Amino acid sequence: METWKTLKRELVFKMPPYLTVESHTVELPDKKVIEDWLWLVTPDFVNIVAVTDEDEYLCFRQTKYAVDGTSLAPTGGYIEPGEDPLLAAQRELLEETGYKAKRWEKLGQFSVDGNRGNGTAHFFLARGAYKTAERDADDLEEQQLLKLSRAEVEAAVARGAFKVLPWQTIMAMALLRF
Amino acid sequence: METWKTLKRELVFKMPPYLTVESHTVELPDKKVIEDWLWLVTPDFVNIVAVTDEDEYLCFRQTKYAVDGTSLAPTGGYIEPGEDPLLAAQRELLEETGYKAKRWEKLGQFSVDGNRGNGTAHFFLARGAYKTAERDADDLEEQQLLKLSRAEVEAAVARGAFKVLPWQTIMAMALLRF
Repeated sequence: METWKTLKRELVFKMPPYLTVESHTVELPDKKVIEDWLWLVTPDFVNIVAVTDEDEYLCFRQTKYAVDGTSLAPTGGYIEPGEDPLLAAQRELLEETGYKAKRWEKLGQFSVDGNRGNGTAHFFLARGAYKTAERDADDLEEQQLLKLSRAEVEAAVARGAFKVLPWQTIMAMALLRF
Repeated sequence: METWKTLKRELVFKMPPYLTVESHTVELPDKKVIEDWLWLVTPDFVNIVAVTDEDEYLCFRQTKYAVDGTSLAPTGGYIEPGEDPLLAAQRELLEETGYKAKRWEKLGQFSVDGNRGNGTAHFFLARGAYKTAERDADDLEEQQLLKLSRAEVEAAVARGAFKVLPWQTIMAMALLRF
């Protein structure tokens, strides 16, 4: 199977640092050309499932603008320009929870939108998490740090209580991994 | 915990039917006001995990513009304006595979981006899938229909072979559900 070829990229709109909209000229395998394929450049981000040696999952109960009411959430955040995804994950875990972790494992990376791009999600598992500092989060949302048991995470994933797509993905992947 | 209040929505860019960019004026619980919160309106979509009575998972091997090489994929597509998500799922399954299913179950719905919106993913499980027609897909990508065993899906999810975020999410959720 042949992938599509990008013949031209054109900038059509920009709202730095969060969004660049491009129009791509794309050639399909049958040589058909699409002149105005929408492509979104948005920041890549990390999410982390951090688990203590006592099998506690570090999660938040928090609000989020796109979510009705509150949601459960894993740690996460945007990757700074040029930052290594693993270092971003370690930075976010420390900032948001005050925890470090003894063992880090990559769970995978995924395009957010198969058609439009829209950034890449990088997922990490952090085992042997331990408290080392106070929280220093710069997030705008109200957050409450929770330590959930595996059974609580299983029930939350089953009922969709992680209401944002990458949050649900990484929590489901972590449950399958163990 | 209080959610954020939307005080004003302003249209800043439009590329119909796939993208509307808005700037929202948002009031936080501490009464702080953000004047230019980026919000993306993109089409809601469905994904479907269809399983036959012989425990075969209907999947595709296909290309996708945002993906390097090929990826495994479940059935899915955009919801038409005003269309019920379940009906969209049933329509997409029939168009893309020629299959109907005896039992439909909602797996959940998720905001794609907790900050920016960017559409909602609606996930369904279709059990007792059976062939009833030839495929009639209008998708632009090359696709090969596969019937995977549960063990093959488990291995594919573990190695991240469903390379697009919602695809990975629904496959992981389906494995946890059974």
